[in-house]
Amino acid sequence: MSQLDYASLAKTFEIYLEDHQLKGDPDTLYAPIRYINRMGGKRIRPVFLLMAYNQWHEDISPALPAALALEYFHNFSLMHDDIMDEAALRRGIETVHIKFGRNLAILSGDAMLIKCFELLLEAGRKNNTGSAICSAMSSAALIICEGQQMDMDFEHFDSPSEKDYIEMIRRKTACLLGTCLKIGSLLAGASAEVADILYKYGENIGIAFQVRDDILDVFGDSKLTGKQTGGDILRGKKNFLYVHAYNSLSSSEQDNFTKAYTAASSTGDINFILEKYKSLNVETYANQIQQHYFKQAVESIDSLSFLNISTLKSFSNDLMSRDH
Amino acid sequence: MSQLDYASLAKTFEIYLEDHQLKGDPDTLYAPIRYINRMGGKRIRPVFLLMAYNQWHEDISPALPAALALEYFHNFSLMHDDIMDEAALRRGIETVHIKFGRNLAILSGDAMLIKCFELLLEAGRKNNTGSAICSAMSSAALIICEGQQMDMDFEHFDSPSEKDYIEMIRRKTACLLGTCLKIGSLLAGASAEVADILYKYGENIGIAFQVRDDILDVFGDSKLTGKQTGGDILRGKKNFLYVHAYNSLSSSEQDNFTKAYTAASSTGDINFILEKYKSLNVETYANQIQQHYFKQAVESIDSLSFLNISTLKSFSNDLMSRDH
Repeated sequence: MSQLDYASLAKTFEIYLEDHQLKGDPDTLYAPIRYINRMGGKRIRPVFLLMAYNQWHEDISPALPAALALEYFHNFSLMHDDIMDEAALRRGIETVHIKFGRNLAILSGDAMLIKCFELLLEAGRKNNTGSAICSAMSSAALIICEGQQMDMDFEHFDSPSEKDYIEMIRRKTACLLGTCLKIGSLLAGASAEVADILYKYGENIGIAFQVRDDILDVFGDSKLTGKQTGGDILRGKKNFLYVHAYNSLSSSEQDNFTKAYTAASSTGDINFILEKYKSLNVETYANQIQQHYFKQAVESIDSLSFLNISTLKSFSNDLMSRDH
Repeated sequence: MSQLDYASLAKTFEIYLEDHQLKGDPDTLYAPIRYINRMGGKRIRPVFLLMAYNQWHEDISPALPAALALEYFHNFSLMHDDIMDEAALRRGIETVHIKFGRNLAILSGDAMLIKCFELLLEAGRKNNTGSAICSAMSSAALIICEGQQMDMDFEHFDSPSEKDYIEMIRRKTACLLGTCLKIGSLLAGASAEVADILYKYGENIGIAFQVRDDILDVFGDSKLTGKQTGGDILRGKKNFLYVHAYNSLSSSEQDNFTKAYTAASSTGDINFILEKYKSLNVETYANQIQQHYFKQAVESIDSLSFLNISTLKSFSNDLMSRDH
């Protein structure tokens, strides 16, 4: 069976998304939803879901409502996280709570979360998979809230352990990628066992993906990433590089390091941190961790040799070697 | 078949709720959920759901997860509404966003909404009604968000029309009561037609219930309601009495009235408003409106003569004549 590639799936999804933008009464509730949907992004989650579905069915159109559901979930979480993080910009434009006010960002976010379940039920109606895919979504959604809470809790002390940091990104980021593959395959009629293997694949790719993100923040080419070098440092956001460096230092050095990291946000001087990262070989280590999870992911789908997962693997490869 | 009464159902639910309080990791996410669940309240929504289920089944235990789901939905909406309304107290104790902070109130609210769907799926698993009851919930949930948005939009102008005010409370309050009866009956195995009739009953009771609430705010006995007389006036909250009075006045009087209503919140003097209500016979009119919706409700279930709806009717009667 022919497999649709990333670009083709993303294009199909983009058209579907725009054709299904919400309008309603009062439209004040729906305007922020259309706004965040149009902010763009790589649409990784819906494409992941469609790729999984495409393993079994050439015609991916029955999976489009579910793909939209996952994009709605993702955008709901961005909308609420941006309030919690007091983020003013996303992809260079105003966040929803800045543009429309905090109350609308709360309520429109709620509406997107509800719409996510409605769309999953719509997708599952034809082949009676609605309950199964909603169950997968609700379990995942709760884990994702826990991940966001862990992330916020981490702000109250100097550093979590590496293990706890990985657990946090497993819940906050990786779980949703795994869930996209799981829901796509359940909707396609795959067994729970196969769906769980694809979940595990997506989860490991997700962890590797987030570590890659943290690496690019400091060691990426800002011309390619379009982001300021060391943005996480300047925002005082403790990412994987910080956590590894912190836990590699002696307790007497840890204090200075944390102070310097925090100070960098006010002075704008990230050089001390960069020097520290270099002396501790943080980039090499982070690359190894990324590779470790990527390898785990690839190994986990070896048993699925009856599928033609080349498109999925090729897309994941691109994600792992991406420079932006 | 014997029908369980309100007190008995509420007691059963209260025990179930406490036995199923959430714990987890990180527990920071779950503490606000336990807190709001323990704030008390009449538990009208879960009891409504159980009453509907009890029409068909003597043993109501299979409906308890769904009853909990609806209480979770209600508490999710309170948690988020309290942030939006900047309410510091609920039932005399600190609201979640005051006690735990705004971010936790957002995220724990999200978790409760997710948990609502998870519990509905759990309840529907045995008899394959999961998709149907989740569909009823998601449609209702979106309408409820629209109601909250209408309520917030109304703040930006002097007064909505009476029709628009009723439409707002239909969505914000009444829809959920109708949905409790609908989900309870669908879960019990009732047809969609019967479930929709019970929905309509609950919706009309809900509108009458909210109008009653607005009447009690001003004309209730504060010793019985436990609330300050004219609390809505003092908060500048435009309720049904305000909307009716405003729309009964000539345009030249409207301006003065709105100014006085707004001023009352700062001076604490509600006498001018009370005089106006008396001269316009607002209480009598509001009682008529309440009766109108109550009558509509009762008429709508006349066709369900094959059911023994006396408990439901008796409970609704109590709600209509309640003095607190």
